[in-house]
Amino acid sequence: MNTTTAEVAHQLAWIAVDWGSSNLRAWGLDKHTNVIAQTRSDKGMLSLKADEYEAELLRLVGDWLPTTGQTDVMVCGMAGARQGWQEAAYLPVPTRLNQLSQGAVTPTLTSQRLSVYLLPGLSQTRSNATHFDVMRGEETQLAGLVADNPAFTGLACLPGTHAKWASLDAGAVTQFTTYLTGELYQLLAQQSVLKHSVGSDDLNDPACREAFISAVSEINAAPETFSSRLFGLRAQDLLDSHLPTGKKRADVLSARLSGLAIGLELADACDQRLSDEPITLIGHQALCQRYTLALNAIGFQTQHLDGDTAVLAGLRLAHHALKA
Amino acid sequence: MNTTTAEVAHQLAWIAVDWGSSNLRAWGLDKHTNVIAQTRSDKGMLSLKADEYEAELLRLVGDWLPTTGQTDVMVCGMAGARQGWQEAAYLPVPTRLNQLSQGAVTPTLTSQRLSVYLLPGLSQTRSNATHFDVMRGEETQLAGLVADNPAFTGLACLPGTHAKWASLDAGAVTQFTTYLTGELYQLLAQQSVLKHSVGSDDLNDPACREAFISAVSEINAAPETFSSRLFGLRAQDLLDSHLPTGKKRADVLSARLSGLAIGLELADACDQRLSDEPITLIGHQALCQRYTLALNAIGFQTQHLDGDTAVLAGLRLAHHALKA
Repeated sequence: MNTTTAEVAHQLAWIAVDWGSSNLRAWGLDKHTNVIAQTRSDKGMLSLKADEYEAELLRLVGDWLPTTGQTDVMVCGMAGARQGWQEAAYLPVPTRLNQLSQGAVTPTLTSQRLSVYLLPGLSQTRSNATHFDVMRGEETQLAGLVADNPAFTGLACLPGTHAKWASLDAGAVTQFTTYLTGELYQLLAQQSVLKHSVGSDDLNDPACREAFISAVSEINAAPETFSSRLFGLRAQDLLDSHLPTGKKRADVLSARLSGLAIGLELADACDQRLSDEPITLIGHQALCQRYTLALNAIGFQTQHLDGDTAVLAGLRLAHHALKA
Repeated sequence: MNTTTAEVAHQLAWIAVDWGSSNLRAWGLDKHTNVIAQTRSDKGMLSLKADEYEAELLRLVGDWLPTTGQTDVMVCGMAGARQGWQEAAYLPVPTRLNQLSQGAVTPTLTSQRLSVYLLPGLSQTRSNATHFDVMRGEETQLAGLVADNPAFTGLACLPGTHAKWASLDAGAVTQFTTYLTGELYQLLAQQSVLKHSVGSDDLNDPACREAFISAVSEINAAPETFSSRLFGLRAQDLLDSHLPTGKKRADVLSARLSGLAIGLELADACDQRLSDEPITLIGHQALCQRYTLALNAIGFQTQHLDGDTAVLAGLRLAHHALKA
């Protein structure tokens, strides 16, 4: 991507945007949907009012635009939330992932140069599932999974602050569940009594890896012990003479805390699942490797789809459907 | 207790102190161990250096002291921690609760007017139990339970930030487990994404009570769903048209969050317990009433011992043992 601004303006076909709570990323695509430019900013939903989105978008991609005509901008994520640019109402599951663009909304713009489509999230309520749940942004990553495989059937996991597990059947999301895993880990590691005991783990270190895997297995076998094992980590730090000392001790205890949080998620997400189908992990490599370790420890295999690749593929699918 | 300072100084036999992390409470007792004076301060362990404890104690109780002679001061809690006044090493379980004073330490003082005894906490390691655990302060409340019933056998629960469950056998603690319940609730209610959804519950309100009891029962039956039910609470707030609106909605969701946190504790603490023996709750009335509701919902009966009564009775028992 050493394309000059003039070349981008000449080749640009449309723009893809993943607009989250705390940042946004934009890609410029040519008519073959190859990426010819990209940019990002920390102006996520949490730092923008509804009338500030258009200006922020023009600030970022204005230089890419051809001098004449309107350029399509496909946007997924929190920009379509009620507190975002304009609400794109949740589509209730089951929803076919190649039909997300049917729920897109088009905010009224000042500029004539852009045509913006905000994609919807997915929801489930007690009328179509066992529990209330929502996603906004992850559905587009899931669409990326079915872009190359329209009849995809299986289980996908998107690890993160609010980890999502989705059951897909022939290219449709039939049911999904969100876990507070990443947020729970952060709160416990940074704000609870455990902050005195934990550091930053490295699962390439054998002691960290073993502590992580043990914790996953313990919680998977006995999820009811989650709350006591949290305090037990503090007690272990005070009393266990077999732990390493100093930074290494804090790192091992971090790995254990991470294993407890992820293990609690897996205890539910993998409950009554057959282990003969691989689970598709979508996200950044390091976090997906961590999940692979955890899932392998309880007998599941995984395959990995990069998160950026997935979201771009999902936005391509949505743009294609819109223009079909 | 309209006793004048002069009368206190005349009648004072010894002083009882519960010195915690964030505050301390002191009671002046006469020779019949009746309370004749009391005071408190917010100078807990977290705000004092080791060489500041004596001055703080004298500042609080100096006026109570007789003009001549030494006055015993029995102290339980974090003042005896390694980061406190002076470490009173943990006694490993099993420990008979009438023998806590055998582990007391006596810090060297500048003043000739006091004789201070810092009581130890309890610990368990993998050599004497299934998991690492510690308590410091709660053992004295448990001693209060056996003060009137030296052969007490049964299960006691001390709800709080770090809730403790202890198995007592003939007046000895044989095993105990700490749950991060209160801290987990606070972090989730105040610092997580759930802060946008929760208010402050009142379990006298039927809708709050029902939400609380449902949550306890759900998690007790399926503790592996804890992490997903946390996010589900946020999703329910976004989607559930059957919830009340406004403040009432936030209050009901608070009650649900409290039920999830306490339910997770009970799922472990009551696992494989017989429900024919009442569980003794030690602590403040409102919190113990909340635990009673939760325990009744899953088939257990409770009895209540006030927390202040318990700690005073435990300090009396320790002082009596020391002087016997």
